[in-house]
Amino acid sequence: MKAIGILLGLLSLTAVSSAQEQADFKPAETNIWGAEYPRVDAAGRVKVRIKAADAAKARVNFWSGPKVDLEKQADGSWEVITPPLVPGLHYYTIIVDGAEFADPGSRAFFGGGRYVSAVEVPEAGADYYAIKDVPRGQVREVWYSSKTTGTWRHALVYLPPGYDTQGKTRYPVLYLQHGGGEDETGWIRQGRANFILDNLIAEGKAKPMIVVMAYGYARRTGQSAVNLPGGPAPATPEARMRTMQEMASTFQADVTDALIPFVDSTFRTIAHREHRAMAGLSMGGFQTFQITLNRLDLFSHIGGFSGAGGLNGRALDPKADFNGAFADPKAFAKKVKLLWLGVGTAEPERMREGIRSFHKSLTDAGIEHVYYEAPGTDHEWETWRRDLRDFVPRLFR
Amino acid sequence: MKAIGILLGLLSLTAVSSAQEQADFKPAETNIWGAEYPRVDAAGRVKVRIKAADAAKARVNFWSGPKVDLEKQADGSWEVITPPLVPGLHYYTIIVDGAEFADPGSRAFFGGGRYVSAVEVPEAGADYYAIKDVPRGQVREVWYSSKTTGTWRHALVYLPPGYDTQGKTRYPVLYLQHGGGEDETGWIRQGRANFILDNLIAEGKAKPMIVVMAYGYARRTGQSAVNLPGGPAPATPEARMRTMQEMASTFQADVTDALIPFVDSTFRTIAHREHRAMAGLSMGGFQTFQITLNRLDLFSHIGGFSGAGGLNGRALDPKADFNGAFADPKAFAKKVKLLWLGVGTAEPERMREGIRSFHKSLTDAGIEHVYYEAPGTDHEWETWRRDLRDFVPRLFR
Repeated sequence: MKAIGILLGLLSLTAVSSAQEQADFKPAETNIWGAEYPRVDAAGRVKVRIKAADAAKARVNFWSGPKVDLEKQADGSWEVITPPLVPGLHYYTIIVDGAEFADPGSRAFFGGGRYVSAVEVPEAGADYYAIKDVPRGQVREVWYSSKTTGTWRHALVYLPPGYDTQGKTRYPVLYLQHGGGEDETGWIRQGRANFILDNLIAEGKAKPMIVVMAYGYARRTGQSAVNLPGGPAPATPEARMRTMQEMASTFQADVTDALIPFVDSTFRTIAHREHRAMAGLSMGGFQTFQITLNRLDLFSHIGGFSGAGGLNGRALDPKADFNGAFADPKAFAKKVKLLWLGVGTAEPERMREGIRSFHKSLTDAGIEHVYYEAPGTDHEWETWRRDLRDFVPRLFR
Repeated sequence: MKAIGILLGLLSLTAVSSAQEQADFKPAETNIWGAEYPRVDAAGRVKVRIKAADAAKARVNFWSGPKVDLEKQADGSWEVITPPLVPGLHYYTIIVDGAEFADPGSRAFFGGGRYVSAVEVPEAGADYYAIKDVPRGQVREVWYSSKTTGTWRHALVYLPPGYDTQGKTRYPVLYLQHGGGEDETGWIRQGRANFILDNLIAEGKAKPMIVVMAYGYARRTGQSAVNLPGGPAPATPEARMRTMQEMASTFQADVTDALIPFVDSTFRTIAHREHRAMAGLSMGGFQTFQITLNRLDLFSHIGGFSGAGGLNGRALDPKADFNGAFADPKAFAKKVKLLWLGVGTAEPERMREGIRSFHKSLTDAGIEHVYYEAPGTDHEWETWRRDLRDFVPRLFR
């Protein structure tokens, strides 16, 4: 009897610890409604499970994280628990016998030039991007006709709370760009920019403003498709930089000749450089610096989130680079009300070094700017959410 | 020499016919930018290609169409050409060694309770849902707080061209619902409802109106999750119908107590039953009939697209069904300005018979209504786009 008692005790202990482990892992916020997997625990470990009854091999591929094999279970499913991931939204794909695809349990996010899965590892205590009981802005889908590309182009526009009821008020505008492989939906779906703005405005930390999120790829008819989502890969780093510059130049024409006039004629904006900002992440930061520094007649606030000058780590030449925009620090400070750079401390060294060296170059050249490091986050959306939270309150003061 | 000439001739013939076959197949409109596959030819055949170097088996699963095995190619990819599909947007998935996923070449659409792929087989001559050079409306994302569900809920709202500039004009409202397994994005992403409205309004065929597309799943805390995306499957057809009715009743409370007041206080609507319509497809048609016939004090125009009464093919009892709404045909005609039913002739027999028998029942009961058959299209979006094109011009006359 005693032996049975012990046995039952052991059994119930096992049951408890397994139930506890199970309870610790909760379905990710990024899952579709009702999907039990992927699951995340408090340490940031992710439990991935997929069905692939007849597969020989299954692997999960976190783009900025672990690539680990799944193990086949008795019921034909495959499972793995990853090591802890840093907080944030992590893109990943599943590879089954050589086929790479999005996890059906996840919502679909446009990243890497196609729709992929992502898992949100919550940041303890961070609720600045949560949906709260505060006045809400609206996100509008608009289409504008661009002579530069000869096409209709799709953009998302955030309008602050009260826009519709305050019929006379005019607002400043932030143009906010996604990264390479992403699209105009990234700042809302992945970044939650609308909730970040709603919350900052409700707390009185940010001025009510319009945020325009455009599709950052543009080419004139016949222009190379290298670097575009789905286009051929560039042959060399130089070819990559060249085509990025070409694309930035075409995108610049689209922004200045089509998008800004469309926004200023469609919404109640303050159509003046003092009330116009641009920022972008990674490739979008590169574009922001190209466009704003070429057109300081149009922009007065500039933000580069994990991407900025495109100097590839070399020192800035203030007289020659960016058409000499940095040649005269006093003139620059008078003209540019905010120059902002940021990077996550867990980003790959090459990225950190690129931004840090640009920061150092600017300091050496006597250019007033803000430099921000996001502690412990990677080249991923948690860094860019934090960037936005720091950047937006400084605008239009 | 002659033999070589013939051989060269044959080779070039082969090259021509292969180039021609290749040229005939064009990347689907529903592809992500730059994706060469899936491809569609003029006959509606779809050429699917995926990478799965180490797979033992690969299959494409068109939900309302063929399920066919792909063949392994020399380069490790897998390919198949399907038999011709009817025009329209066809959901499909790929199955590799038991893992079912979305084709990475396709945009992601929410259908079947998750993100899946789809291929658009164009309808010859149909441009009513194309983006044209006409004044464009906007699609807005809004969030409203619902006491019924205790949550923030997300909806899309189409505002007609000129809404922002005509600051005094008030508009009638159409509430437009998606089908089972889809969500509030379906009518825009899959249905292109905004382009259909833009084009009808530009041609003077439809009155400018607001279109509200809500998330059609709602449950009170503790209510069964059966039938919800990701929830358990209902055990019987009766259980399915019961939970659909429960959900329709909770969704009704959400629509009438939260959504309509939110829309009427947020947008310049004409907040009166004569200027309020509701329509939906499949499950959304079922919900539309439940909600509008329970609340004729709120609605005057009713549309069921491949889904309506929920009588499961049995004859209507005008005195008892729908709280007796159909008991008095004259009173009904006075109250309900439009009752509209539609179905595609290529839909599964059970669906066609359900709608046809409801149409016959209504005719027998002397109830004035419009009955429309979409020629040659299935229980899919091409039918519902056609329905919308026929339905919208009849509204608010």
